[in-house]
Amino acid sequence: MIDTFKTLLGDAGVLTEPDDVAPYATDWKHTVRGAPACVLRPRNTADVAAVMRIAHERRIVIVPQGGNTGLAAGAVPDASGSQVVLSLSRMKAIQNVDPVGMTIEAEAGCILKTAQDAAADVGRLLPISLAAEGSAQIGGVVSTNAGGINVLRYGMARQLVLGLEVVQADGTVINGLRSLRKDNAGYDWKQLFIGSEGTLGIVTAAVLRLMPRPKLVVTSLLAVADPAAALRLLKLMQDELGETINAFELISGLSVKLVEEQFGQRAPLAGNGWFVLIEASANLGGLREAFENVLSRALEQAIATDGVIAESQTQAAQLWAIRERITEAELKAGRSVKHDVSVPIPALPAFLADAEASVSSGFPGARINAFGHAGDGNMHFNVLVSVDTDSAALNRSVYDLVAIHGGSISAEHGIGSYRVAELAHYRAGAELSIARLLKRSLDPKGILNSGKILGMEK
Amino acid sequence: MIDTFKTLLGDAGVLTEPDDVAPYATDWKHTVRGAPACVLRPRNTADVAAVMRIAHERRIVIVPQGGNTGLAAGAVPDASGSQVVLSLSRMKAIQNVDPVGMTIEAEAGCILKTAQDAAADVGRLLPISLAAEGSAQIGGVVSTNAGGINVLRYGMARQLVLGLEVVQADGTVINGLRSLRKDNAGYDWKQLFIGSEGTLGIVTAAVLRLMPRPKLVVTSLLAVADPAAALRLLKLMQDELGETINAFELISGLSVKLVEEQFGQRAPLAGNGWFVLIEASANLGGLREAFENVLSRALEQAIATDGVIAESQTQAAQLWAIRERITEAELKAGRSVKHDVSVPIPALPAFLADAEASVSSGFPGARINAFGHAGDGNMHFNVLVSVDTDSAALNRSVYDLVAIHGGSISAEHGIGSYRVAELAHYRAGAELSIARLLKRSLDPKGILNSGKILGMEK
Ligand SMILES: Cc1cc2nc3c(=O)[nH]c(=O)nc-3n(C[C@H](O)[C@H](O)[C@H](O)COP(=O)(O)OP(=O)(O)OC[C@H]3O[C@@H](n4cnc5c(N)ncnc54)[C@H](O)[C@@H]3O)c2cc1C
Ligand SMILES: Cc1cc2nc3c(=O)[nH]c(=O)nc-3n(C[C@H](O)[C@H](O)[C@H](O)COP(=O)(O)OP(=O)(O)OC[C@H]3O[C@@H](n4cnc5c(N)ncnc54)[C@H](O)[C@@H]3O)c2cc1C
Repeated sequence: MIDTFKTLLGDAGVLTEPDDVAPYATDWKHTVRGAPACVLRPRNTADVAAVMRIAHERRIVIVPQGGNTGLAAGAVPDASGSQVVLSLSRMKAIQNVDPVGMTIEAEAGCILKTAQDAAADVGRLLPISLAAEGSAQIGGVVSTNAGGINVLRYGMARQLVLGLEVVQADGTVINGLRSLRKDNAGYDWKQLFIGSEGTLGIVTAAVLRLMPRPKLVVTSLLAVADPAAALRLLKLMQDELGETINAFELISGLSVKLVEEQFGQRAPLAGNGWFVLIEASANLGGLREAFENVLSRALEQAIATDGVIAESQTQAAQLWAIRERITEAELKAGRSVKHDVSVPIPALPAFLADAEASVSSGFPGARINAFGHAGDGNMHFNVLVSVDTDSAALNRSVYDLVAIHGGSISAEHGIGSYRVAELAHYRAGAELSIARLLKRSLDPKGILNSGKILGMEK
Repeated sequence: MIDTFKTLLGDAGVLTEPDDVAPYATDWKHTVRGAPACVLRPRNTADVAAVMRIAHERRIVIVPQGGNTGLAAGAVPDASGSQVVLSLSRMKAIQNVDPVGMTIEAEAGCILKTAQDAAADVGRLLPISLAAEGSAQIGGVVSTNAGGINVLRYGMARQLVLGLEVVQADGTVINGLRSLRKDNAGYDWKQLFIGSEGTLGIVTAAVLRLMPRPKLVVTSLLAVADPAAALRLLKLMQDELGETINAFELISGLSVKLVEEQFGQRAPLAGNGWFVLIEASANLGGLREAFENVLSRALEQAIATDGVIAESQTQAAQLWAIRERITEAELKAGRSVKHDVSVPIPALPAFLADAEASVSSGFPGARINAFGHAGDGNMHFNVLVSVDTDSAALNRSVYDLVAIHGGSISAEHGIGSYRVAELAHYRAGAELSIARLLKRSLDPKGILNSGKILGMEK
């Protein structure tokens, strides 16, 4: 097998030495360690197609890998020693950046940040932005339907994918690299490959939509009594500022306290309940004035109890630092069990109250570090626990309430190999059935990232 | 069969009298006349599921129908007398309208306009808007992935669908009526049913995203020399006005002349080339001023040769009337062959020039009525022809150029039964193969809207 691949891809295209292979064998969090038979590094789509034809013929499991920053251990092989990692990293060309049609075409291995920069160079915005953007690749972003900090305004990755090129399980190449905003000629098959974490096909290139680049930005931190007040604030903001709101982040008092404890950074305003960090941007003058008006009204109507607007980019960065440091502060504070969940936005206050009550009673001493993209209904409901806490039981108690409130056990990060059992438990039978049907239809031999998402082995 | 259905749905749920059945048997343009065995009118999802179970068992072809305003004859049965129309019209409840989470949940038979009004009642916008909105239904809008006049800003229907309930070919109900903006828990199977024109499943209800409702609107008509100048204008507008642009409509001189000839309405500005109608809206003051600045710059830089901004709603309506009357003016002017095509936006000028040259040389005397949503790359390239023109040959000459320029033969209206042969000709083999695979997997007996899109019969 190795020889066949070397003939095909050249020596540089097949890694087998333990040291070379190691980075591809473990996930970003180093919680899973696999044992790949080898790592393949194709140069182009034809290489990928040839690899898949061989894999299909010989029933070799292929695990596609991009920047390996995924948070569901989806890009790493199992420990059997028989799975093969297919790294897209060498396929990183940007084929086209168009400021008029507002599109970018890039190969799967192109780093997200590189694509963002190429868009910026022509005065446009690639609005997918996440902390791993310096390593995550376009193929990974598409395959995980990545979110990030601008989803409220610009949507998930899916919303920005106009065209895809995909290699199927048997090596068939489907070239759908059209850069059309409107195309109702037949089924939109590319949707299947977005967010399916490499279990249905290999993404080799994509055309993404770009957006106009806003010139004016307002960043503000407000104190609110509770999540219900935060939602009143959200409604007021949406009424007055429309789609200019990029981010509406709800932050619990404990989250702010953790940042204070671990980094010595204090919130620049009084508040003993919750906080909301808001960023709005636009090209029209009047943004700042409108924002100030809304803030005044929020204070007058006692929706917010205090609020500051950043007067400079430095101040804006300081406000964002509070939000961005929460994860690291949590890490420093000890062991935590994380939940990246979403619920319908109006259900947020009830979900948070119920989950807090359930965790407090079931896991005495646990501290809840809740924060997240409330404007999208997406909360990081993380729980600081002691070493002997039963994390499976804790997950169950949180996810049960997510289900009761009509939510999702994975808002952004996907299922990968981490949440296979939870997906099987929490999604309805008919949803799982159609998913399995799609998997069997598109990958009848079960060679694409076997075991991930649905837990179906080859 | 009729008796079985009557037992299930009651007498009012099964139409068999020729007069009752007639409106369901022909499409909006009255170009196709089918012969349904009967028309079924279920009251709820359980009824639909029961109908599909029977149909599946007995291999009865089911043709789902919403408002029957589709422009591809997709909602009407064939002439065999054996196909059954399933009308969703009685399932029209609005289940929920949420101004904070900005979602609406409605049954498939809910009229689009009714849903728009319900959104407006809570201060929100359901941004799907099209001339047939008083008759088109949510199920039809979802199943055709409808576009309309606001796609530039808000996207096609797909972009606004958060949740779906679907009945599969065998009667299985998949309830995915979640109202989540973020949900990466497993495959996003609902995407399959959006835009597949009733060939993969029956949509029984949907959760759609709402948007903030902009308060300020600017409407403007500009004269430009040619489509290339229109694209320079588009870029300038996107640079300065960002996402506030709702519509950027390119209108040929002949289109304006047709409206003048047939309705006596003249464009309120000088111009002997092309025209661009622009609508922008926002909640921020400064929109009008920014728009005026852009207009001045466009005139200074000779991108536009003349321009007016509406000073009142009446004037705005008059400007829109020019655009909206084109279709009727064309109808009055005689026979025409229509093409609803899209190309990548930068390719618009070359496509229009090539298509005009090809039509002029191949079909002497034909007049080209070109207009459309240039901001989305979507043009209505309609050709006024004499009675003896070979429309198939004309289609071929236009679609060949669409293909050469990387476009789509159906931007908005879908394939239905009209464009089955064209789809088979113009889409690549691998794209058709995966489409057929999906059809066979989800509808193995071929009973869902047989013959449409892929031309696959049961
Ligand atoms: C610090 C940090 C912050 C993060 N923040 C966010 C965030 O805000 N929002 C968010 O959504 N995610 C976030 N993530 C998760 C991660 O960055 C994203 O999921 C990203 O899209 C993964 O890209 P990648 O190239 O690293 O993919 P990988 O990790 O390499 O792969 C992810 C999955 O996609 C599959 N895959 C990869 N490439 C391909 C391909 N070409 N074809 C088919 N399948 C493929 C893999 O098999 C795997 O299942 C964060 C991660 C880190 C480490
Ligand atoms: C004057 C006019 C203007 C128009 N303008 C536009 C426009 O600007 N943009 C645009 O995109 N379209 C436009 N259309 C086309 C049409 O209005 C849209 O496609 C609309 O979405 C169709 O909705 P409907 O309920 O009438 O669907 P129908 O015509 O009843 O059905 C359309 C297709 O969907 C299927 N279908 C219907 N309901 C369901 C269901 N519940 N489940 C599964 N399949 C179903 C049918 O089988 C058929 O294939 C226009 C039509 C007219 C007459």
